[in-house]
Amino acid sequence: MCRGDDVNCPNFEAHFKAFREDINPGRRDFLRNGVLGAGGLAAVGAVGGLSLVTPALAQASAKNGPATPSDHYLPATSETVHWGYFSKTIKPQLEIDSGDIVTIETLTHHAGDDLERMVQGDEGAESVYLWTKDKKGVERRGAGSTDPNVYKIGSGDGKGVHIMTGPVYVRGAEPGDVLEVRILDCVPRPSANPDFAGKTFGSNAAAWWGFHYNDMINDDKREVITIYEVDATGQKNWAEAVYNFKWVPQTDPYGVTHTMIDYPGVPVDHSLTSRNFDVLKGIRVPIRPHFGTLGVAPAEADFVDSVPPSYTGGNIDNWRIGKGATMYYPVAVDGALMSVGDPHASQGDSELCGTAIECSLTGTFQLILHKKADLAGTSLEEMDHPMLETQTEWLVHGFSVPNYLATLGKDAQSEIYNKASIDDAMRDAFLKMRKFLMGTKGLTEDEAHSLMSVGVDFGITQVVDGNWGVHAIIKKEIFSGRA
Amino acid sequence: MCRGDDVNCPNFEAHFKAFREDINPGRRDFLRNGVLGAGGLAAVGAVGGLSLVTPALAQASAKNGPATPSDHYLPATSETVHWGYFSKTIKPQLEIDSGDIVTIETLTHHAGDDLERMVQGDEGAESVYLWTKDKKGVERRGAGSTDPNVYKIGSGDGKGVHIMTGPVYVRGAEPGDVLEVRILDCVPRPSANPDFAGKTFGSNAAAWWGFHYNDMINDDKREVITIYEVDATGQKNWAEAVYNFKWVPQTDPYGVTHTMIDYPGVPVDHSLTSRNFDVLKGIRVPIRPHFGTLGVAPAEADFVDSVPPSYTGGNIDNWRIGKGATMYYPVAVDGALMSVGDPHASQGDSELCGTAIECSLTGTFQLILHKKADLAGTSLEEMDHPMLETQTEWLVHGFSVPNYLATLGKDAQSEIYNKASIDDAMRDAFLKMRKFLMGTKGLTEDEAHSLMSVGVDFGITQVVDGNWGVHAIIKKEIFSGRA
Repeated sequence: MCRGDDVNCPNFEAHFKAFREDINPGRRDFLRNGVLGAGGLAAVGAVGGLSLVTPALAQASAKNGPATPSDHYLPATSETVHWGYFSKTIKPQLEIDSGDIVTIETLTHHAGDDLERMVQGDEGAESVYLWTKDKKGVERRGAGSTDPNVYKIGSGDGKGVHIMTGPVYVRGAEPGDVLEVRILDCVPRPSANPDFAGKTFGSNAAAWWGFHYNDMINDDKREVITIYEVDATGQKNWAEAVYNFKWVPQTDPYGVTHTMIDYPGVPVDHSLTSRNFDVLKGIRVPIRPHFGTLGVAPAEADFVDSVPPSYTGGNIDNWRIGKGATMYYPVAVDGALMSVGDPHASQGDSELCGTAIECSLTGTFQLILHKKADLAGTSLEEMDHPMLETQTEWLVHGFSVPNYLATLGKDAQSEIYNKASIDDAMRDAFLKMRKFLMGTKGLTEDEAHSLMSVGVDFGITQVVDGNWGVHAIIKKEIFSGRA
Repeated sequence: MCRGDDVNCPNFEAHFKAFREDINPGRRDFLRNGVLGAGGLAAVGAVGGLSLVTPALAQASAKNGPATPSDHYLPATSETVHWGYFSKTIKPQLEIDSGDIVTIETLTHHAGDDLERMVQGDEGAESVYLWTKDKKGVERRGAGSTDPNVYKIGSGDGKGVHIMTGPVYVRGAEPGDVLEVRILDCVPRPSANPDFAGKTFGSNAAAWWGFHYNDMINDDKREVITIYEVDATGQKNWAEAVYNFKWVPQTDPYGVTHTMIDYPGVPVDHSLTSRNFDVLKGIRVPIRPHFGTLGVAPAEADFVDSVPPSYTGGNIDNWRIGKGATMYYPVAVDGALMSVGDPHASQGDSELCGTAIECSLTGTFQLILHKKADLAGTSLEEMDHPMLETQTEWLVHGFSVPNYLATLGKDAQSEIYNKASIDDAMRDAFLKMRKFLMGTKGLTEDEAHSLMSVGVDFGITQVVDGNWGVHAIIKKEIFSGRA
């Protein structure tokens, strides 16, 4: 059934209206928790002012948008997505005001692993995945070359893999500002194939870029894809495996053979694979719907590989970036140019084998612009990295190389893959958390060191995206005794 | 008030009896959760057999102890502790049967940072911390030399720092067996100084071995100690800082000057320090009482530095090793020789600055022996590393070098400090979790890789113990759909 997320439904308009109303409780939760309301609503901190956005900043930022926010809907089609990169040069798909609410469809870039379950009958997904001997729905996939004389396996060369919906241009956003992105909702995209009504599917690829790959037992290197089923009705809070198969060489419609998973969206021909339906029987994976890749366009290059996360966010792959969470990004280019993709039904900290349960989702976001001039003295002042706020925690994200585009020179986008290190990401997370505690919370350096040792948890976000990640979590309740 | 944990209390016997009765609910919880009961009680798996100990193994292991378990009490005194090492060569302080329940006092090795709050009036702690120009309560501190012509700063040279109570000899335990250690209770040891009635104190040292030490702002290297207060009555579930001070050279009673924190138990003379009571105001650190160091004696060397964790457990520094948790250790020597120390009131994942809130605790443990011959086909078969089971999760612990004593040769105990690497610990945790999922849960290698990526969380246990640690957590509920 259409939940206001199927533009082909004859009753889409009515369903979408109902859907918008349905998210009001979510928005009310945000208000109740002391986060800035939409547009002109300035909220006081009901939980002791424990949002990164102070009431004063909320009031100041209210002027950046109209009094009444608008709602927008951005479907995922071959026209509204860009595949495999962030770019400051591409045309925005939507232009909005600060405070506006945007529902955005996102498609997994692993739907080619089972077109029957994840694409068939879904007009948006079909337009994106269209690939015949003459035409691709989305020609370029990756930040690599688009010159047939230069690229090796296809336009963009698969240097970057995520289907990104957007970008969204936020009026008035300029470098130095901060964009607050609240995730009001995050729901699975149901299979459009009537054979699989009420179900959603996702794909997990244990691929060559996985952490496990060089440690295969008996050195029997292989790539294995597991298809998972997710309950689209929301009654089961777990995913279950349906089948798995070993990747075998696949020849794409343009005639290029892919012996490995080296280019996104290659349609898998299952007459060539051997599907094993006796897989992970009785195993229930708790679902954690979230967006693996969400962020704004970097300034340093025209086309930026979507795989390594960076100071503008992107492919952070933290499963906590789901419903109820808020991300803060430093704006690097005019309009911010936010894009979202890489939807996941679930992922563990580390994303060990290379991917999560890659599963199309539809998200509803509220975007709020905070101008540089208003940030002085707040937690967001001179913030040069993405931050995550959940209902109960703040998180900083450390990377092997924090702003690799600026640091690693002209070959940054290939060089970053040689820099993968949890040790370095740990150091970066430590430095960012210290800065946060000293800057935002007014602690001395000595206070920050002690508190980080006794009250901050460091975890491994991912070890598969070139620029590896460590996150540091601090609970808001730690500050509940302060005036 | 004595809670059955103060041997000097005139009513100690009665209090201890009441205390034992008081822990019965905890023991009942364990039974209810399907873990083997004491002695002859064989439990069925009430939560779908989701303990590592199957009902069959529970029944088999019941024969290893008497039908009725005994209770024991091991106070911490200069006679019952060994300081800074594990050793297969030292005399057991207690000899027990499988299934017996042991209450063990543990003392923090940082009590010298504030003798007034953490030692004064406490007969056990005073006996351990005794140090005059003629005598030390515990002469040897560390696995280093005891020859005055060889050691540099004191007997044992501080190569290992933790005050360990024990060892406890478990009758019938032999190499190849597994020792199950259930933590039935874990309570703070109240300050014995009447000026601080109802309070417990702990120390956090941001020390030279901390992860932060080479990243001091302006390269202003210093060691800073923060004293925390913990509510010994159990009414507040948080700790608060009392004061901090910078370490200044301290001359110990034998006349050795310690310009750095290089030897445990040096009594701090606060007439030389400058105490800052305006510290971390309003910050409430959630308490997580646990034992930083708990394990059995390794076979590879006679005296083993207590700092680097190893295959026999030891200084794992995972805050989840608290009340309600169960540890499993591979037995390496006859009698297992379990010791416990390094009590913590709280710690974050990573233990960033070098220590936790180091705070004396008293623990109550039930020790159950599983014989090698009974382990075939169970989760504990050929287990060559420590495992942690909480009420809801299983955890494996990866280290930079899993069994460094065997791997690194004759200089292993110094060499390990050059091997610190989160990347290596991550790999070890991955390999151990894969083995667990394949061996225990019967998954194929491909199933294990997929499940680890979508349903297992990898976190950074500690980056300060030479042999750095990464833990992998899998929720038991993931298996709740299995027959």
